[in-house]
Amino acid sequence: MEPDASDPASVETRELLLSGSDADVRRVLQTLTPQEVADLLEGLPSEDRERVFPLLDTARQASVLREVETDVARDSLISAVPDEKLADIVEHAASDDAVDLVEDIPEERRDRVIASMEAEERAAVEELQQYPPDTAGGLMQKELLRVRAESTVGEAIDRLREHWDPKMGDLFDIYVVDAEERPLGRVRSRHLVLNPPSRRIREIMLGDVRTVPVTMDQEHIAEIVRDYDLASVAVVDEGGRLVGRILVDDIVDVLDEEATEDFQKAGGTEALDGSYLSVPVSQLVRKRVGWLAVLLVGEMGTLSVMAMYEHELAKATVLAFFLPLIISAGGNSGSQATTLVIRAMALGDVTLGDGFRVARREIAAGLVLGLTLALLGAGRVLLWEEIFHAYGTHAPMLALTVGASLLGIVLWGTLAGSMLPFALRRAGLDPASASAPLVATLVDVTGVVIYFTAALTFLRGSLL
Amino acid sequence: MEPDASDPASVETRELLLSGSDADVRRVLQTLTPQEVADLLEGLPSEDRERVFPLLDTARQASVLREVETDVARDSLISAVPDEKLADIVEHAASDDAVDLVEDIPEERRDRVIASMEAEERAAVEELQQYPPDTAGGLMQKELLRVRAESTVGEAIDRLREHWDPKMGDLFDIYVVDAEERPLGRVRSRHLVLNPPSRRIREIMLGDVRTVPVTMDQEHIAEIVRDYDLASVAVVDEGGRLVGRILVDDIVDVLDEEATEDFQKAGGTEALDGSYLSVPVSQLVRKRVGWLAVLLVGEMGTLSVMAMYEHELAKATVLAFFLPLIISAGGNSGSQATTLVIRAMALGDVTLGDGFRVARREIAAGLVLGLTLALLGAGRVLLWEEIFHAYGTHAPMLALTVGASLLGIVLWGTLAGSMLPFALRRAGLDPASASAPLVATLVDVTGVVIYFTAALTFLRGSLL
Repeated sequence: MEPDASDPASVETRELLLSGSDADVRRVLQTLTPQEVADLLEGLPSEDRERVFPLLDTARQASVLREVETDVARDSLISAVPDEKLADIVEHAASDDAVDLVEDIPEERRDRVIASMEAEERAAVEELQQYPPDTAGGLMQKELLRVRAESTVGEAIDRLREHWDPKMGDLFDIYVVDAEERPLGRVRSRHLVLNPPSRRIREIMLGDVRTVPVTMDQEHIAEIVRDYDLASVAVVDEGGRLVGRILVDDIVDVLDEEATEDFQKAGGTEALDGSYLSVPVSQLVRKRVGWLAVLLVGEMGTLSVMAMYEHELAKATVLAFFLPLIISAGGNSGSQATTLVIRAMALGDVTLGDGFRVARREIAAGLVLGLTLALLGAGRVLLWEEIFHAYGTHAPMLALTVGASLLGIVLWGTLAGSMLPFALRRAGLDPASASAPLVATLVDVTGVVIYFTAALTFLRGSLL
Repeated sequence: MEPDASDPASVETRELLLSGSDADVRRVLQTLTPQEVADLLEGLPSEDRERVFPLLDTARQASVLREVETDVARDSLISAVPDEKLADIVEHAASDDAVDLVEDIPEERRDRVIASMEAEERAAVEELQQYPPDTAGGLMQKELLRVRAESTVGEAIDRLREHWDPKMGDLFDIYVVDAEERPLGRVRSRHLVLNPPSRRIREIMLGDVRTVPVTMDQEHIAEIVRDYDLASVAVVDEGGRLVGRILVDDIVDVLDEEATEDFQKAGGTEALDGSYLSVPVSQLVRKRVGWLAVLLVGEMGTLSVMAMYEHELAKATVLAFFLPLIISAGGNSGSQATTLVIRAMALGDVTLGDGFRVARREIAAGLVLGLTLALLGAGRVLLWEEIFHAYGTHAPMLALTVGASLLGIVLWGTLAGSMLPFALRRAGLDPASASAPLVATLVDVTGVVIYFTAALTFLRGSLL
């Protein structure tokens, strides 16, 4: 988020950061969340940004760096911090964030920074770096607490005293594991409060730990977290051993990211690499020009199809008038159908096996929608004839042509739009690529054929 | 989610539910999550559903009822349970879920069920019923733990012992309040474990409680939770007194719901009231027919505009050939721009004040995109002339017409698509209504004008 220029508090804080003493700046920074500090820093000229940042304490520097959104601001902050200090900042972050921070360091410095880190934190980062970023391994953090099922509440309290680390944040679960480190259950600190110290963990643990394999895709994890209302999931390796955990706040980010990607794809662009205002205009162009060009070439199909009807068009110019109306109705109904199906697939409400069920529903819906538009379209022809005598004696047959075309093209658009996501998914492609513009283009080419076929059927011998 | 018919475990469980003894059914139900039980129940014939449901214990009945998605299944389960038992089920749910359950009870039974509830739970439900469902009040639950800042860790532990209730779930925060019930901070059960019983709560509490007013809109709350990575927010009344809390799992549902609504609107349909397969076909039609009809009527503008160029069309039929190509390019580029802006607004990345910045970026992007498509379009004319001698001596000027039209319409589509969400928001409407089809329709009408203006400019005296 941008700092809001219309917010007086934010303007005042900005002034203070620009001109206040170091002590004043430190004091005001204390009162802000990392997100707010990041927003303010992004709004400062780079020399001020680089003067203010070192005034934060190390743990806050780590959180603020995570929240800075534009590459330019992040790069300038990182370049202003020496290697040793950067290693310190990374050590202060939880391991999942530490990996992200390390990725932001320019490659030529990265190895030096990692080499300056403490052994334990370095090992965690190096392990997590091996996982693809959009899998459980790439999302998880290593910091977690384990207790053995045979230990007592008192022993668990001692472990918590000894091993709790601010990086664990508002620790959600203490995992109960067996001798092979496989999760058996979980306890929460309230259990340690509410039970006598001599009680065995096994007797009080909750058995509902949900685990995901380290290789699982983030989209799938998000689905599980959403469906089961979880605050965290445990991550296990191929041997079923507990290796990390993923917290719901990271899943919220995944859900947002996936929804944004799907949304952008459905609008006919590739997904942007960052927020709209943070990416350069060159990226706005690059992510859009591919699909626009493909769609234009696809739409060139209408040129060839229309050339087939050159004779009819020359005879009855009025046919050209209705062309945009008719093909856009196909595109609109296709856009509706594909949008509903893509989103239902993303939510897991519709799976590949539901193809026939969806087709049946869409044919039914398409028939009603098509008939409605057919009546409107034919009504328009008859009404204009009544008022303006626009179409002469051909009006009834022209109304029939327009109506029949609308019925046909809406039915076809609805069916094509709803089935394309299935076809894409079956082909191993992303169903969200069945964008409104792609469906509209496919329907346009066939729409021209439907329209002229109707015209030849109803107008031959009269207008044609 | 539907039970997956291709999953052998699910097929086996279904068989057991249909034909197993009550004891067997009870045993297998124990091993499933509420979501899984709900999915299975929805797949059963109603008499079996109504036989199996009473075999669950009361707390599980409450959770399962929450997860059942189709109205038919939920209604059949509710109708199978007598009033007294239904009151019991509602009492076993946390207050936010209790309100939702009460809303699902048919009106003629609702008062009787509420009257059968215990006084405390009834009061909570009746209070929460007063709030609109999409506000903080409608989302929050009343169950929470409060301690006073002056009390000690030992006293807080006693409160936890006495007042903790399974409905609180994995309790996230114990709120520290002053004498007027205003939140001052929060402690977590780990603090109670890690600190000596004589310590004052004030000395150990975290000061970062985030509060939202009871009237705040759910979309705004979701934004706060997302931006600050919160696990819960405290809800306060107009006097700043703590009245409830909202947990992140409910916010995940809100985020999904809002993303789904925006997605569906952007595809040119009204948001569905439930998941795609759970709503009747009549709703699929009802939610789509309005926009389709509006768009068709809007697109009728092209009829009037094209009639203005009847003379030119009659003289040069070839102009009609390029019409779908050109107006679809405008629709596609408009669809891309509106999609990017709507999503950026939903994420809070773009606010009303960013209008000029977005316009500048989109004009720059539109120029590059338009030039690219212009070259492709003009190239196509020249190439076909070269190969097929399709357009005769008019080819160069026709190429110029097509190219200039594409440049103009892509630039216009991009600008219109990016600005429409701003105009809608400024008018107090939902920017997500600037759907791809709506933008395409607006651009189509003006696109016809742009195209024929270019044709008259470049082809007058030759083809025209």
